[in-house]
Amino acid sequence: MKKKVAILGSTGSIGTQSLEVIQQHPDDFEVIALTAGRNADLLIEQAMRFLPRHVVIADESCYDMVQEALAHFPIQISAGIQALSDVAALPETDIVIAAMVGFAGLLPVYAALKNGKNIALANKETLVIAGALITALAREKGAHILPVDSEHSAIFQCLSGEEPGSVEKLILTASGGPFRGMTHDQLAKVTSREALKHPNWCMGNKVTIDSASLMNKGLEVIEARWLFQINPSDIEVVVHPQSIIHSMVQFTDGSIKAQMGLPDMRTPIQYALGYPNRLISTFSRFSFTDCRELTFEKPDFANFRNLALAYEALRMGGNMPCIMNAANEVVVGAFLCDRIQFLDMPCVIEDTMRKSAFIANPSLQDFQLCDQEARARAEGGLRGLG
Amino acid sequence: MKKKVAILGSTGSIGTQSLEVIQQHPDDFEVIALTAGRNADLLIEQAMRFLPRHVVIADESCYDMVQEALAHFPIQISAGIQALSDVAALPETDIVIAAMVGFAGLLPVYAALKNGKNIALANKETLVIAGALITALAREKGAHILPVDSEHSAIFQCLSGEEPGSVEKLILTASGGPFRGMTHDQLAKVTSREALKHPNWCMGNKVTIDSASLMNKGLEVIEARWLFQINPSDIEVVVHPQSIIHSMVQFTDGSIKAQMGLPDMRTPIQYALGYPNRLISTFSRFSFTDCRELTFEKPDFANFRNLALAYEALRMGGNMPCIMNAANEVVVGAFLCDRIQFLDMPCVIEDTMRKSAFIANPSLQDFQLCDQEARARAEGGLRGLG
Repeated sequence: MKKKVAILGSTGSIGTQSLEVIQQHPDDFEVIALTAGRNADLLIEQAMRFLPRHVVIADESCYDMVQEALAHFPIQISAGIQALSDVAALPETDIVIAAMVGFAGLLPVYAALKNGKNIALANKETLVIAGALITALAREKGAHILPVDSEHSAIFQCLSGEEPGSVEKLILTASGGPFRGMTHDQLAKVTSREALKHPNWCMGNKVTIDSASLMNKGLEVIEARWLFQINPSDIEVVVHPQSIIHSMVQFTDGSIKAQMGLPDMRTPIQYALGYPNRLISTFSRFSFTDCRELTFEKPDFANFRNLALAYEALRMGGNMPCIMNAANEVVVGAFLCDRIQFLDMPCVIEDTMRKSAFIANPSLQDFQLCDQEARARAEGGLRGLG
Repeated sequence: MKKKVAILGSTGSIGTQSLEVIQQHPDDFEVIALTAGRNADLLIEQAMRFLPRHVVIADESCYDMVQEALAHFPIQISAGIQALSDVAALPETDIVIAAMVGFAGLLPVYAALKNGKNIALANKETLVIAGALITALAREKGAHILPVDSEHSAIFQCLSGEEPGSVEKLILTASGGPFRGMTHDQLAKVTSREALKHPNWCMGNKVTIDSASLMNKGLEVIEARWLFQINPSDIEVVVHPQSIIHSMVQFTDGSIKAQMGLPDMRTPIQYALGYPNRLISTFSRFSFTDCRELTFEKPDFANFRNLALAYEALRMGGNMPCIMNAANEVVVGAFLCDRIQFLDMPCVIEDTMRKSAFIANPSLQDFQLCDQEARARAEGGLRGLG
């Protein structure tokens, strides 16, 4: 029996790589639904190739174009935000790949889990913002949340066959990004173009900037806390520039398990889709003859303040990770269009966190409001810089 | 319920560390039997501390001494080779730690498995010599063979929760020993005292010399073939001088899992004893801040010929690993008393292998004969050198 897969965000980096994996395993998977934000051209091309039953374009202004292009295919086409949640909850779907970027990914994942769907989760914000709520819902519905991030996939793989009680700590590896080792003065001058040159991974722009600022690792620490139900103080970050060890688990007997490989997102995508089975892949293998040295160092919390802010937001809990995440989306956007400097980012995020009201047990509606308010406040913070 | 443990070879390096682990977990384990070759003093001391029901001293000339010392304890004392097998098969035992060194360890393990006992296996020769026979017996009797070697324990841990069919290859790490990187001319001059200075591990003399000559890794390749039922060509050796990654498994999706930690034999001993549960340990933890670099290189098959000989014996199969192992025990003994040079060892082993008759499907009796013949032939080879 083929697994029926719905891909939310099929035109992004994770979405296109997911389709590559699916294409290599035609006997294992069938695409049921594809959705995109506004990249109608690629969505149309993907739909013609994979012939899903459903296609959604979030940007309603693109609807006519998609509808016209796919008119002669047996595909149901819809548009708008609500359609994303509807398609995430389709009865025939076995697994939903949540590959949308940002806050927008949260509601469709919620809808999918409500209907007991397994999630291959690439959208970081879902657990960063609403980790407690989302993981409780998954437990209630008996649905799996399968991590697609290489770090969380590594931890998930290392935990296979192990009892939850035997975990002592999680060790998330971080490449350190293109600015690793830079001083404060050097960081003050870096540009968005430099930030987009990630040494190891090829990812979308938002994630690449987060990677350069270590916010990406901060978001992953928060995700890990919820995915693996572990104390924040038991999550450690180690900088490992080669990105070969994707992350590790240390157990109560002192033993450490690591999952390794070449940096290739298709491996964790395939693991999540195939779970609990490992599927064969023809991707290049890592060889110790090619990479003879794996190195490790402590993260620089003083100069890469986003990581410290993320730990702080996690410790505070409630709506604070949501506020931090919203502020981060705003500052990354501003940095990408060169409105602000690299080191302005943590300042605006911290300021937004300080000025926002704390809510200990926010609802999904609270999160939406907090997200909007924090964005507005961060925008104000940006203007304050100028 | 406490697990009832019999330790074969309790006075050796693995035996004493096993008792340390047991002492740290008084609620989990109870010592049922202790056996030693000829170290009566330590055996007596251990017996007084752990009060096992049975004590065996293999060297019959030590019987009176042990008997006298333990006369007032409720301990049954026996002596001789047969008593080792008897005690390995005691009905009340849950797990037998097979920590005797050399060929002598084989028969008691056979007796234990015949009686369905789980084995924590530290004796390399059992699987090197009779891997096919022993693993078939374990399967037939539904007994577990739990590896105690750090390398095989690492692989065993990495396989936890994985399907056997998803294994692509095993990657055994080797420290490379004290002579790593030496040229042929340098190796020609090394002494047994230098060979006994292992950079990372504290082990018995025989194992330490095997480690310096890479025969230890060769024996482990053969063991791995049987423990994990894998093709010899799918077992790779990588030199990793820091001995932090204890070994790895590469899966069919290209993903690699590694087990890591400080070099401490108590960790794999405890894992085998506690299996399927991980017990808590207070042993020192590995820290990436202390060891900031893990390096890897190819083994030097040309200068460390024992490793190549082991692969050859494994490929030939039948009685060839038995012959190689017997010859190796003889040459290591001779090297330890400075009768021969370091580089003489592979010559005598290879010569013994070439001159011995091949038996494709040897019985346990065949192995005993082959072992004796190979020892005699290797002794002859030693004399031929002088």
